[in-house]
Amino acid sequence: MSQVKSLSAPVAPGGTIGILGGGQLGRMLALAAARLGLKTHIFSPEDDAPAFQVCAARTIAAYDDERALAAFADACDAITYEFENVPSGAVDVLSAHKPSNPNARALAVAQDRLEEKNFARALGLKTADYIAVNSEKDAREAFARLGQKQAILKTCRFGYDGKGQQKVTSAEETAKAFVKFAAPSLLESFVDFAFEASVVAARGVNGEFAAYDPPENLHEHHILRRSTVPSRLSPRQCEEAKAIAHKIADALNYVGVLAVELFVAKNGALLINEMAPRVHNSGHWTIEACITSQFEQHIRAVAGWPLGDTARHSDAVMENIIGEEAADWHALGARGGALHLYGKSEIRPGRKMGHITFLSEKS
Amino acid sequence: MSQVKSLSAPVAPGGTIGILGGGQLGRMLALAAARLGLKTHIFSPEDDAPAFQVCAARTIAAYDDERALAAFADACDAITYEFENVPSGAVDVLSAHKPSNPNARALAVAQDRLEEKNFARALGLKTADYIAVNSEKDAREAFARLGQKQAILKTCRFGYDGKGQQKVTSAEETAKAFVKFAAPSLLESFVDFAFEASVVAARGVNGEFAAYDPPENLHEHHILRRSTVPSRLSPRQCEEAKAIAHKIADALNYVGVLAVELFVAKNGALLINEMAPRVHNSGHWTIEACITSQFEQHIRAVAGWPLGDTARHSDAVMENIIGEEAADWHALGARGGALHLYGKSEIRPGRKMGHITFLSEKS
Repeated sequence: MSQVKSLSAPVAPGGTIGILGGGQLGRMLALAAARLGLKTHIFSPEDDAPAFQVCAARTIAAYDDERALAAFADACDAITYEFENVPSGAVDVLSAHKPSNPNARALAVAQDRLEEKNFARALGLKTADYIAVNSEKDAREAFARLGQKQAILKTCRFGYDGKGQQKVTSAEETAKAFVKFAAPSLLESFVDFAFEASVVAARGVNGEFAAYDPPENLHEHHILRRSTVPSRLSPRQCEEAKAIAHKIADALNYVGVLAVELFVAKNGALLINEMAPRVHNSGHWTIEACITSQFEQHIRAVAGWPLGDTARHSDAVMENIIGEEAADWHALGARGGALHLYGKSEIRPGRKMGHITFLSEKS
Repeated sequence: MSQVKSLSAPVAPGGTIGILGGGQLGRMLALAAARLGLKTHIFSPEDDAPAFQVCAARTIAAYDDERALAAFADACDAITYEFENVPSGAVDVLSAHKPSNPNARALAVAQDRLEEKNFARALGLKTADYIAVNSEKDAREAFARLGQKQAILKTCRFGYDGKGQQKVTSAEETAKAFVKFAAPSLLESFVDFAFEASVVAARGVNGEFAAYDPPENLHEHHILRRSTVPSRLSPRQCEEAKAIAHKIADALNYVGVLAVELFVAKNGALLINEMAPRVHNSGHWTIEACITSQFEQHIRAVAGWPLGDTARHSDAVMENIIGEEAADWHALGARGGALHLYGKSEIRPGRKMGHITFLSEKS
């Protein structure tokens, strides 16, 4: 890897934050940057990227177009990403030109489930049991070794919203799933959890750390349906969740917001499901319920600003608006919550089209 | 005036709201529209207009460029204004092409202090005593007729942040001030008020009305320094303030957010100081303290959407960041409030550069 640029001074108002990726996360990052007087430059291969509607400058190019990446970096003061599956070549080009966060190591760990789990275990953190699967033979043996009635085969890379994973109940089924995926995978022990939670936190350039209250998350068809704060986590579990994020962030010399999805086992243990080196759907409620949203916090971190206040002033429930649900925008607009629609040009089944957050008095 | 277009249906997500004016109000309107999935097209004569950094489309042209105005209107689904001093020719062009709110009558009333006060009095609302002044002779006579030790001469048009007004203590001084202004003016009785307040409210296309809690406002050097909710207004006075806004909005068949600045007399009477047919500096605290900000509420109204919830979940103090104060952005960013910087390319004395809002538990 080439030399990596670090921030020598915070990006002053009027400066430009470059964001790779133009989906809803890039869009909400751009809106947050604007509140701080920072401009954004969005890089996306899609000419109707939602974030293009709210930024000061746009680059439409492929993520492996090194010339476009270099020109983009030259036009920005600091760079960040709205997603983790950034080609490592792109990270190298960008970080050689301008301070780019999260760093390459954080992206690499989060891109690969096996690396991620090995990394977590090496830090002494808990995960579901898992075994690497690189052949049909591995697949059969792994199922036998886990010794459970069911398990989940997951591709190591490019999985999201349930894509690249399959529940299996026999060695044979595991082998078949591996053949279908035809990619390095891991077999994960099925966790019969009490509920799911996550922790969204930030680490600044000087190592300062701040975490939000961990929400409880409900998934439907592998897509986040609802996040609720406060969760059913005890105060001690909340502290443990924040400590997990802190340990991970420090170990990666991380700068920016990161999210860690957790399984809360019936015995109370917190198992790391996966981590996201970015703002996260389960943190959208922070826009209304905290003085500093996760989006502003991420911008603050990657711009070298002091982190903002993560205290929660209200209880909150965030519900995703998925696929055709967005067609009811008029009724959604009358529901009394804080409605967010992402400016996507087309409704598709399973596509995250927006979300709505309801606040109530802090319990 | 030409025929005026009305909204036949709400502007759907993906549609475009045109905003005449590209300052901080236009910018915050654009950010609010984006949250609802609406695009914005900003029209401003200044090529570095702050709102240009956050919109989907831009027109750089003079406010009297009828061709540019018509092309702008053609590209939008509904149109609004970030300021009241819109040339009436521009309003005519725009409203003949597309639904444009607030309407011409509301803009005309708010553009002229004399019309505004006559309008308020005709509705049975209270104002300070005032006398029209169109000559030196008028000026001297007016001072004598008011019969007070001091009064304020104000130009009828184009006054803001203390510009176009002067305190006077004699008939002679009044005449001199009129000669200096050289414009239609009015002499207003000096109100020895207890404090200043305002009411920010919205009226929707179907006549629905919703008001925010009236803040108490502190001005320094004629510029708003701080808005605080709750104010020292009694619950009865809060209701009276909202009723004033309601009466004005209904009388004008108003669509959008409007603000009414009030003097709270020592005997408890609410006197109308002036009205603004737009979002207002004294309503910026609604971004953090309410589920629907004044900016989103205005966009909802002019787009024909149902109005949002104006309930306040927290107490709030909003402080403006004026002129050189913005140079301390790093310290401001560490103060723990919600910081807003407006993306202005240059700091100038007295210029509103941003604001910061602090929330506390609802009292």
